[in-house]
Amino acid sequence: MAVNHRIVLASRPAPGLPVPENFRIEEAPIPAPAEGQVQVRVHYLSLDPYMRGRMDAAKSYAKPVEIGEVMVGGTVGEVTESRHPKFAKGDFVAGSLGWQEWGVADARAVTKIDPQLAPISAYLGTLGMPGITAWVGLLDIAQPRAGETVVVSAASGAVGSVVGQLAKIRGCRAVGIAGGKAKCDYVVHELGFDVCIDYKAGRLRDGQVAPRNMNPEGPDSGEREGRYPLVLSDALKAAAPNGIDVYFENVGGETLDTVLRLMNPFGRVAVCGMISQYNASEIYGVREFRSILVNRLRVQGFIVSDRMELWPKALAELGGWFREGKLKYRESVAQGLEAAPRAFIGMLRGENFGKQLVRLV
Amino acid sequence: MAVNHRIVLASRPAPGLPVPENFRIEEAPIPAPAEGQVQVRVHYLSLDPYMRGRMDAAKSYAKPVEIGEVMVGGTVGEVTESRHPKFAKGDFVAGSLGWQEWGVADARAVTKIDPQLAPISAYLGTLGMPGITAWVGLLDIAQPRAGETVVVSAASGAVGSVVGQLAKIRGCRAVGIAGGKAKCDYVVHELGFDVCIDYKAGRLRDGQVAPRNMNPEGPDSGEREGRYPLVLSDALKAAAPNGIDVYFENVGGETLDTVLRLMNPFGRVAVCGMISQYNASEIYGVREFRSILVNRLRVQGFIVSDRMELWPKALAELGGWFREGKLKYRESVAQGLEAAPRAFIGMLRGENFGKQLVRLV
Repeated sequence: MAVNHRIVLASRPAPGLPVPENFRIEEAPIPAPAEGQVQVRVHYLSLDPYMRGRMDAAKSYAKPVEIGEVMVGGTVGEVTESRHPKFAKGDFVAGSLGWQEWGVADARAVTKIDPQLAPISAYLGTLGMPGITAWVGLLDIAQPRAGETVVVSAASGAVGSVVGQLAKIRGCRAVGIAGGKAKCDYVVHELGFDVCIDYKAGRLRDGQVAPRNMNPEGPDSGEREGRYPLVLSDALKAAAPNGIDVYFENVGGETLDTVLRLMNPFGRVAVCGMISQYNASEIYGVREFRSILVNRLRVQGFIVSDRMELWPKALAELGGWFREGKLKYRESVAQGLEAAPRAFIGMLRGENFGKQLVRLV
Repeated sequence: MAVNHRIVLASRPAPGLPVPENFRIEEAPIPAPAEGQVQVRVHYLSLDPYMRGRMDAAKSYAKPVEIGEVMVGGTVGEVTESRHPKFAKGDFVAGSLGWQEWGVADARAVTKIDPQLAPISAYLGTLGMPGITAWVGLLDIAQPRAGETVVVSAASGAVGSVVGQLAKIRGCRAVGIAGGKAKCDYVVHELGFDVCIDYKAGRLRDGQVAPRNMNPEGPDSGEREGRYPLVLSDALKAAAPNGIDVYFENVGGETLDTVLRLMNPFGRVAVCGMISQYNASEIYGVREFRSILVNRLRVQGFIVSDRMELWPKALAELGGWFREGKLKYRESVAQGLEAAPRAFIGMLRGENFGKQLVRLV
């Protein structure tokens, strides 16, 4: 008889990266749907940075996963049994069934997806929560105008890759920040960003090499303290010669500080994530907060689940652009539920390339 | 024959507080108005924190004062000669004639003021730039709703005192932060704030004493690092039992960090000034930036001169409330131009009480 495998939180991680021992794989009966529910065979599990926050006991914007509970996570899968008239066996649905092979959910907690429009895994990426996150943060919060310069960190990731492509659709200059030559090549040559800065190398990936040891801003710049990654700063100046109007923030830390210094007056910063801080054992102090005053910036944090009313509009637009070939994506797919913990830790280290998924069937 | 006395920037200050030697008093002929200008005998000079920024060579939101130039500053005075039909000798006008006894200005650069409605010095405070700054930051940017909690730092100052009174007019709970018992007593008993925290004593000034050594937020709070002024944090928790919805920021530094930790979801921070940083030789790193993400805050810097289109509406409302007795104020008046440098340095140290002015006649 088939069993359900699921991964539960075994222990809370110490500050820093989680370790595989923080997770435990369990066998359990396949859950049966109650009236009004569907039973789903999960095909893909999404791995996302926010999950790191849920592993801590500390208060954040959502409640923590308790020890022994199944790890939370977005999923797509096939309905194997339905006790709700809206769904039939064989339908494909997106939902949040967590790190397990089988799950049940209330009918209103899952959404039918169209395998004709896109591979079902896309509904965990460009046509799912990450894509809608990009849409809300860029188009609703930051609202770039044609000709403005948009910078996005973690540019090759599930959210960042959509942000840059939306910026191009809006007529903006799109500047990515990513780690490594392969990611930067992808961001420029496949996704169509204007330029991508390899923060690991401090080099532009369109052939230009960032100048080093320049300090054009004089003794008042942050560089007098010798703290900033000069190479990133110089590379950004070269990549955004007219300054930065919009920053879509995924990483935090020194990258945030470096970008803040280069923001144009009346710039907007959409704060979507601060992945560099999720595992940090010491909190980074943001030194360029004063730029918010001097440049009259609007800095706004957001969480896509607060803006559910925007989802239909966002999905319709994303789907349209996807059909037109304007939204490309790449996936890193780990195979089998037992691979999820290491894939998750690797993602937090930046080892994935594009949307990180686990394929369960 | 009468001469004009004026104070020029003699040298740029080292990081930290300016010293009297950064200024030099000069004699000069009284300037004659050209066609379209007015000549003004300055009665009051306004001293404001932003002037510290203008003393540095570094780029900020306005160009620096050059060495040898008259220090910038808002003024009110009497028209002594007019070469523009809109003004007559004897009119009182507000303008920016700087640190000098006499000045000339284009007619469009000065505004007629009404000595019947209020003492002319009020047009440098509650009915001038500081009052309009409070109006724009609180009512246009932060937009508090009735019942929300508004915290303002530098609460007894020219801007902060208006912020809290506007918050009360809007039906909010107004919490001030100020330095010393006298200022806190004034903020609560004269201005009508609900409570004022004396950051120097860490005590509430309505009789409550802040609890000490509490750490209810557990090991993830900033307190684990031992960096925050626990007393301010505890006092704020007591003063804002429902959390903080709006923060009107005048000071920066640890106060900013402490407030950020206590912001409610969807709170707004209007960044008007960071006086603690203007003279700081070391930049403070803001550790609670993550609260912007976790609590989906909107943090917006602003400068009142960017919003000139709001001035007529703001002034009309402020004037109305002033007539109704709802806007009280206090002034610290230094006598004579030569007293300006020390009064300015004292203001940067927080030694003034209410709006800092220099009386020149």
